[in-house]
Amino acid sequence: MTAITIIGAGNMARGIATRALAGGHAVQILARDESNAGSLAGELGGAASGSLAAPVTGDIVVLALPYDAALAVAEQLRDALAGKVVVDISNPVDFATFDRLVTPDDSSAAQEIQKVVPASKVVKGFNTVFAGTLVAGEVAGQKLDVALAADDPEAKDAVAALVESSGMRAIDAGPLKRAHQLEGLGFLHMAVQGQLGNTWSTAVKIIGA
Amino acid sequence: MTAITIIGAGNMARGIATRALAGGHAVQILARDESNAGSLAGELGGAASGSLAAPVTGDIVVLALPYDAALAVAEQLRDALAGKVVVDISNPVDFATFDRLVTPDDSSAAQEIQKVVPASKVVKGFNTVFAGTLVAGEVAGQKLDVALAADDPEAKDAVAALVESSGMRAIDAGPLKRAHQLEGLGFLHMAVQGQLGNTWSTAVKIIGA
Repeated sequence: MTAITIIGAGNMARGIATRALAGGHAVQILARDESNAGSLAGELGGAASGSLAAPVTGDIVVLALPYDAALAVAEQLRDALAGKVVVDISNPVDFATFDRLVTPDDSSAAQEIQKVVPASKVVKGFNTVFAGTLVAGEVAGQKLDVALAADDPEAKDAVAALVESSGMRAIDAGPLKRAHQLEGLGFLHMAVQGQLGNTWSTAVKIIGA
Repeated sequence: MTAITIIGAGNMARGIATRALAGGHAVQILARDESNAGSLAGELGGAASGSLAAPVTGDIVVLALPYDAALAVAEQLRDALAGKVVVDISNPVDFATFDRLVTPDDSSAAQEIQKVVPASKVVKGFNTVFAGTLVAGEVAGQKLDVALAADDPEAKDAVAALVESSGMRAIDAGPLKRAHQLEGLGFLHMAVQGQLGNTWSTAVKIIGA
């Protein structure tokens, strides 16, 4: 059992918490508005909750937030996150144009967040997976693929173990800078939803292995 | 029926030619060494062949070449390719390090090739698909997804029609600049082969739609 803190109380927090609870992990949900965290924890059952001022009990901390908010929370909680594994799930899409990413061309959201919390071990993950599919735990009868990128091998292994024990398949995408490509893939997956019926219930999967 | 010229006689040429022939299209295979083109055409049956000096008979011309060679051939055949749909399938991976792409951070192979043949309509495609799976035509009983990016809608539609009539699913990934993300995905797909058994027989697929 791994202790996981999820920061945020939106759809991705719900999805990741659902899977982690199904995997028997200890889940703490924290949100700026404590009542949102409490509502989600109460609905899911079995999760603790609190505000951003609460002690962070997880060894793995998932920033289940949009990119801008993830950056801000990382800065706010820098000391509390020191030494911990911090999972960035964001897709830094320019939602005004839906035609670009807001991060520098030679970087990624995960690398920018790592700069804000240099004493934490940032792992990129879950950004290619949609929230609703995490709740269901599968798409078309197939396990979700969760691609991970990180520079710290132990941190990446810990998140991979969480992913696998929660019923999904972990794919090792390489070092943290590979988050650039993963975020590109997350962007593509979002951008093609219109032609696929706008269900946001699809998954990117490597089939045949 | 569409007339397609495939430049190159390697594994990707073989894969794309196999699918196009199965779809009932007219296929011409050209290569710098005419005998390589002739061998492949003879093996597949039903395809014409020639050297790079041969008249280009296809309305869609697939550069089934590594990035450097694709750039060089595009330059060499610029006049012959004017007005045609040119498909770039390359993944501009730095094969010495396998840790980066050789294209500028704000560009892609497809955009660089478009600069070389400004009078052609470049479409990015097939770079996320492995050669062997094209020959088989499917992976794990599922149609291959072929993601396409292009600025010219008619050119993209023409390649999408070729893809669909050849038994695969076309995914519209957006404008040509989205080739940056598609090449990132191609790179990822290659980079994870080691952990997936190095069969190079997998496919990236959007499941659930």
